[in-house]
Amino acid sequence: MAAFEPRDPGYQAAVRASFARQGALAAIGAELIGLAPGECRIRLPLSERVTQQQGFFHGGVLGAVADSAGGYAAMTLVPPGAEVLTVEYKINFLAPAQGPEVVATGRVVRSGRTLVVARAEVELLQPRRPPVACAVLQQTIMVVAPR
Amino acid sequence: MAAFEPRDPGYQAAVRASFARQGALAAIGAELIGLAPGECRIRLPLSERVTQQQGFFHGGVLGAVADSAGGYAAMTLVPPGAEVLTVEYKINFLAPAQGPEVVATGRVVRSGRTLVVARAEVELLQPRRPPVACAVLQQTIMVVAPR
Amino acid sequence: MAAFEPRDPGYQAAVRASFARQGALAAIGAELIGLAPGECRIRLPLSERVTQQQGFFHGGVLGAVADSAGGYAAMTLVPPGAEVLTVEYKINFLAPAQGPEVVATGRVVRSGRTLVVARAEVELLQPRRPPVACAVLQQTIMVVAPR
Amino acid sequence: MAAFEPRDPGYQAAVRASFARQGALAAIGAELIGLAPGECRIRLPLSERVTQQQGFFHGGVLGAVADSAGGYAAMTLVPPGAEVLTVEYKINFLAPAQGPEVVATGRVVRSGRTLVVARAEVELLQPRRPPVACAVLQQTIMVVAPR
Repeated sequence: MAAFEPRDPGYQAAVRASFARQGALAAIGAELIGLAPGECRIRLPLSERVTQQQGFFHGGVLGAVADSAGGYAAMTLVPPGAEVLTVEYKINFLAPAQGPEVVATGRVVRSGRTLVVARAEVELLQPRRPPVACAVLQQTIMVVAPR
Repeated sequence: MAAFEPRDPGYQAAVRASFARQGALAAIGAELIGLAPGECRIRLPLSERVTQQQGFFHGGVLGAVADSAGGYAAMTLVPPGAEVLTVEYKINFLAPAQGPEVVATGRVVRSGRTLVVARAEVELLQPRRPPVACAVLQQTIMVVAPR
Repeated sequence: MAAFEPRDPGYQAAVRASFARQGALAAIGAELIGLAPGECRIRLPLSERVTQQQGFFHGGVLGAVADSAGGYAAMTLVPPGAEVLTVEYKINFLAPAQGPEVVATGRVVRSGRTLVVARAEVELLQPRRPPVACAVLQQTIMVVAPR
Repeated sequence: MAAFEPRDPGYQAAVRASFARQGALAAIGAELIGLAPGECRIRLPLSERVTQQQGFFHGGVLGAVADSAGGYAAMTLVPPGAEVLTVEYKINFLAPAQGPEVVATGRVVRSGRTLVVARAEVELLQPRRPPVACAVLQQTIMVVAPR
C-alpha cells in the first residue's frame, strides 16, 4: 500500500469536526480512535443500540461503521475545504461479531481527484484473545470540492 | 419477478418476532410496515440518531435498513424454525436522503435452499411530492436451518 | 423506472461504434441486439471461448457482458462526444448458465452528470422454455466528457 | 492474513486440472503462474481478444481473471474432490490497464466450510517500471462437496 501525502495540513481537525457532526455515529457510541494519512480507525462498543436479534453486533451497523472508517480515511487526503460522499460500498461478513467491542480500520487503496477507492476491515476485540476479523468492506467515495 | 410460496405458514409471526429482537433497528426507530412472501418494507423516520454531518439520513444507516429489508424478505420464504444471515451486501447511493422519512423495500430475486439473493430499494417520502429513489442494494443471504 | 431522454440524438451510432471497437466482446461473439434510451441488450451464444470447467457459461464472462450492457445503457444518455468508464460492478450468480445462449439487459437506474448507476440482468434462453435469470449486476459508471 | 493448511494434499493437481478445462480462460490466453495454500496468481498478456474500445485491457475481462484467481485461491483449501462456485463478486477499477500484461493475485480472507471469502488484486506489469494496481475485487465462493 502506497504512502499518502495529505493535501490539507489541517486534515485532522477537518475530519474530527465532520465526525462530531454525525448524529448516527454518536447515537451508537462510535469513537474516532485513529487518524493518519489515508487511514482511519473507529471503535464501537457493544450496547443495545447496535445488536441484532441474537445480541451480536448488527451487520448493518458494522457496515455503517466500516463505511465511515473508509470515508474518513479518504477525507484525510482531500484538499482543504473539500468533503467526501460515499458512492457505494460492499461488505462481506466473515464471522459473528459477538463480544465487547469492534474496531473498523479504513484504508485508501487509490486516491484520485474525483473518486477514491478504500477498503475497511472490522475486527472484534476481546480480552486475552487475538482480534477476530469479522467483516471486510470495499468502497467508492466521491470528493466534493468546496463551493 | 416470480411469485413466491412461503414454506412456513407462520412466517409473518416469525419475522415480526425476529424484528422485535433487533436492538439496532429499535434504537433508530425503524418500523416493519409491510410483509408478503418474498417482500419486506421497513420505514425509518428522520431523527438525530440517523443523520450524517449535514443532517441528511446517514448512508450507513440506509444500508443497515435496506440490508434488514432484504434479509427479512428472504426470511419470509425459509422453512419453519430457520433463520437468515447476511453473507454480504452492496449498496449504491443515488441521491441525498434529505426529508422526513425513508422506506426500504426488500425483494427476493432468487430463493435457493442455502443461499438467497435479494435486492432492496430505499425511497425518500415527502408530503405532496413523488417518492425519490435514494439507494439500491444487492445482497446474498444464507439460510440457517433450525438446530 | 423513469423514462430517459437522450442528450445525444446520435446516441445509437455512438454506442454501436464503441461496441464495434471492443476486441474482447468481438472475440467471444457478443452481439448488440437492442438499444433504447437508458437500456442496452447484448446476446452471447455458447462457444468454447466462453465456458468454465463444466462447459457452462463462465461467470466472469457473464460479468463482462453484463458490465458492457450496463455501461452501454449508460452511454445512451451521455452528451455528444462523451464516453463512459466502469468505476465498479458487483454481480450475483443465480443459476448455472447451461444452454445455447444468454442475453444481458442493462438498465440505467440513475443518470447523474458525473456518475451513472445501472443494473443488469442475464437471462439464459432455451428453445421452448421460459427464460431463466442467471445473474444480476449492480454498477457505477463514470461519464468522461469529450476533451 | 492467516496461514492456511490445505485439506487436500493433491490440491495443486486438482486446481490445475480444473483451470485447464476452462475454455474461457484458454481463449484469452490466461496462464496459471502461481499456486499456494489460499493463493493463486493468473497472468494475462495483452491481445486483441481482451481489449476494450481504446485498446486497453477490458474491465470485464479483468473481472473474469480476478474472479478466477480468487476462486482458485479458494479451491486450494477445499477437501479432496470438492469444487468451488462463485456466488458473487465486486470489482473496483483503479487505473486504466494499458500495457503488455496483467497479473491477478487472489487470496483467501476467510475459509469456511460452506462459504469462502476472497480478495484479488490486478496489477499491470511493464518493463522497467513498478507494477501498477489496476483493480481490486472482493468475492464470495461456495464450496461444492463431491457427490
